[in-house]
This record gives sequence, C-alpha cells and structure tokens, in this order.
Amino acid sequence: MQVGIIGIGLIGGSMAIDLKKRGFADRIVGVENNHLHAAAAVEIGLVDEVVSLDECVAQSDIIVVATPVNVAIRLIPEILDKVDTQIVTDVCSTKEKINEIVHYHPKRKNFVASHPMAGTEYSGPWAALPGLFDGRAGIICNAEDSDLRAVEMIKKMYDCLNMRIIFMRAAHHDVHTAYVSHISHITSFALALTVLEKEKNEKNIFDLASGGFSSTVRLAKSNADMWAPIFSQNKENVLTVLDTYIEKLQEFKKHIAEYDENGVKELIHNANKIKRIIR
Amino acid sequence: MQVGIIGIGLIGGSMAIDLKKRGFADRIVGVENNHLHAAAAVEIGLVDEVVSLDECVAQSDIIVVATPVNVAIRLIPEILDKVDTQIVTDVCSTKEKINEIVHYHPKRKNFVASHPMAGTEYSGPWAALPGLFDGRAGIICNAEDSDLRAVEMIKKMYDCLNMRIIFMRAAHHDVHTAYVSHISHITSFALALTVLEKEKNEKNIFDLASGGFSSTVRLAKSNADMWAPIFSQNKENVLTVLDTYIEKLQEFKKHIAEYDENGVKELIHNANKIKRIIR
Repeated sequence: MQVGIIGIGLIGGSMAIDLKKRGFADRIVGVENNHLHAAAAVEIGLVDEVVSLDECVAQSDIIVVATPVNVAIRLIPEILDKVDTQIVTDVCSTKEKINEIVHYHPKRKNFVASHPMAGTEYSGPWAALPGLFDGRAGIICNAEDSDLRAVEMIKKMYDCLNMRIIFMRAAHHDVHTAYVSHISHITSFALALTVLEKEKNEKNIFDLASGGFSSTVRLAKSNADMWAPIFSQNKENVLTVLDTYIEKLQEFKKHIAEYDENGVKELIHNANKIKRIIR
Repeated sequence: MQVGIIGIGLIGGSMAIDLKKRGFADRIVGVENNHLHAAAAVEIGLVDEVVSLDECVAQSDIIVVATPVNVAIRLIPEILDKVDTQIVTDVCSTKEKINEIVHYHPKRKNFVASHPMAGTEYSGPWAALPGLFDGRAGIICNAEDSDLRAVEMIKKMYDCLNMRIIFMRAAHHDVHTAYVSHISHITSFALALTVLEKEKNEKNIFDLASGGFSSTVRLAKSNADMWAPIFSQNKENVLTVLDTYIEKLQEFKKHIAEYDENGVKELIHNANKIKRIIR
C-alpha cells in the first residue's frame, strides 16, 4: 500500500510516522510546496520521497490532503479529476464547504471527508509526533456520499492510528468544532494579544505567569495560515459562539463591577460543571 | 521551628508537605473551620494537629494565612492583635487591599505580604501536592513595611520551597496578576459557560474536545469561594484587562465577519509573539 500525503506538516507528518511504523503503508510519498519543509520531511524521515502532485496521485492508493482548508478546497476537486480507483481523503477542521464543493463531482464516491481531532499548537514537519492520534476522535462526514470500499479503507487507516471513529453530518461537525475547538483558539489568541499589549515589561509576564496562564494561552502559538481560513469557512458558527462567549464575559463584568460576589460565584459554579465532561 | 497554617487547602497543604519534608518545620499545626477538611488534613498527614486559631498563634513561630482573600483580610489584623514576636504572612492572590488594612497596625512589622505564584485548578486538602512551588515565583510585597528579621524568615521559607523570590509593590503585583492570572480564569470560566450552554449533547463535547480545548478550559474547574473575592479585591485592574480582552475579541469578530483573512492573520501573527515569553 502506498499513501500519498499532500502537505507534510504537523498532521500529515504525524500520520506518516505511524502509518509507516505500524505497517499500514509500505511506502509514503509527500507533496510539499515549501522547499524547506520538503527537505526537512525527507531529512527527518517522515516520507520516502517528495514528488509532484501528479506523481503522487498516479502512484498512491490513498491520497491524504493535509493542507490548510483554503488550499484543500481548491486541491480536492483537482485531485479527483485525476483519480481512477484511488481513494482521496482530507484532514481539515471544517467539513461543510469541502463537501459542498465536491458534491456533484463525478468522482465524489472516491472521496471520504474526514477530520482526525488531534494536534498541538506547533506546525511544520518538525512538529510531527508519533502517537499523536492515539485514542482521539476520527470523524468521517457524510459517509453515504462515498463508496463503501473507500469508507472502509479510511476507517482502516484511522484504526491503525488508534482513533475512535465517529460518523457525523458535515454541518453538525462544523457546529460542534466551532464550540469545542475553533472558539478556544480565538479566546487564546485574544488573551495573548491582551497580555502582550498591557504588559510592556515582558519579564513580568514570564516571572508571574503561573501554569494556569501558560495552559490557557497555549493555543495562541497556533499557525495563522492554518487558522484564518478555518474561521472563514466556518464563519456563521464561529460568530454565533463568539457572541455567546462575549455575553458571558459581560455577565462577569457586570457582577464584578457591582461587587456582586454571589453573582460571580453562581457563574463559577455553573462553569465548574465542565468537570463532568473534561478530565 | 513550628509553622501554623490557617486554611489547609491546596496551597496551605502543599506548603505543609514540603516545609516538613525538607526540614524547615519540625511541627506543623493547622487551623481549619471546615470539619471534613480538618479531618482529611490530619488523615492525609499534612499537619501534625488541627488546633484553634488562638492555640495556633500562641504556639507557632510563623503563621501562614492560606484562606480565600475575603477571609484573610478579616483574619490578618485579628492575628496581628494577638502576636508577640511571631511572624505572620499570607499567600493571597491580591495584595493591595491587605496591605492597606494592616498599614497602621501596631504589629505591621511582624507581617510579610507574600504570594507564592503556583497552584492547580483543584482545591481542598486532597489537592495538596509535593513540589508544587519548585521553580515558581514567590512574591514579597512592600517589604520595607516589615521587620528585616521577618522578611528574612519568609525568604528562608520560600527558599525551602525552591521559589524564585521577587520583591514588588503591592499595587504593581495586583496589576500584573490581573493580566497573567486573574483574566485567564475569567476567560476559562466564560468558555466553559459558553460550551455548556451551546452543547446540549454532552457526549459531543467529550468526543470532539481535543487537547487544546481541555487545556484552554482547565481553569474553569477552579473554586468559586476562592475566586469571587479575588475579582472583588482586584476589581479595577480586572475590569480594565477584561475591557481590552473584549476589544480583541471584537477585532476578531469584525475581520471574520468580513471574510478578511489578512486581518485575522495579522492578529494571529501578533498573538504568536507570546512564544517569546511562554514556553
């Protein structure tokens, strides 16, 4: 089995490591426009070879599109134009726009829309990690639009990555990821901007930042080229959640401004219920 | 040396563990109004004995006030009324109000205002951990208002906890902690409230929550009785930072609503500068 990975960054590179090591793929080729990333991917040993897009599509049994979502939405139809029996999947954080764009493609059945829910705040081939996907959710969207054979193959690939496979409508996926992933990136970016603007003396941030701050602001290190297109493609959901989030902050503001400690405590008690859900 | 700890929770209990184990204290007594916490502190072995406030003050060389800030502000003057040569310190997250309230106390020089910047999102004696303070910042505020002997003793205590000691004005402390600690608790509480309100199906939160969300929302598990009084005592600073934070979110909202990916990228690039400061 040959797997072709388009975009050898954190996600593509981490998939490459485990798919090869665990025997799912005999050979992995990569497509990477960034010359430095391409050379690093070979040097680190993430892929056997970096090839052109056409070579990758011609040679591979499975083609994984692991680029930012704005590139993926352009590439996926192009790749489907070239495939015969090859299976194409993507790993993007938004699914509805991608599904719309391929919906009437004659090779739609060769495509499986997926999203392995794992990552770190780092990017590029040097961020790739073994075991990144172990135990996490592997989402497959609108599976009924794909060939059964294609879905089974992608399931097998995610099984090899030790993912818990969940089937979902693309529209639902985008709503849920707005809540549990996209919004927390915006809250972290905004926190970093706030602290950087206010704290002119950087030594104080470093000295006084306890573990809590580092953990809350961690996602603010995330990559702009990846995240800006996600917010565009999931605009309506992201803006809805952002409005609710700002309302909650306004509630805190009001109670704090009025020295209403009971009001603040009630908000915190309700927030504490997240304990039931998150370890 | 006997150390008396008033409030045997996460902070008081963690101090007790290391001060005893590392030989700073021969005996540690605790004062704890919550009967369950008192019994647990003895059972776990955090303190040698739970005693009354009067016994604690009479017997101890150093008295550490490790209660929520609203209790501390009432207790510290009461304790100073009772001391002879004993040294009193507190571990509270706000320092200005506490310093104001003891400023003209005849025993002001026996008091050292301090804040060991460490913690977790858990509370109570069962949350106490060895090594919690290792390498973190131990702040001492307005040291010139305290006896040199008292400051030296508290420095020695934080040395034993492996803390990096930083001297600071109480007013500056409260500004900086609003930026790097208090605001990140509010952003996490608000995130938890948002997600809990929007996600009616809790299984989806659990399934789709990647590591990023858990890390961003972690502080939302924090204790209401501890945090509500902190926001009151640091009201002005907290509200100022909160306003800036909401402005940053509005900037994201505007750019996302206009599909202005370059605007979003510029915000993210600026936020990424937090990398220089936080590991």
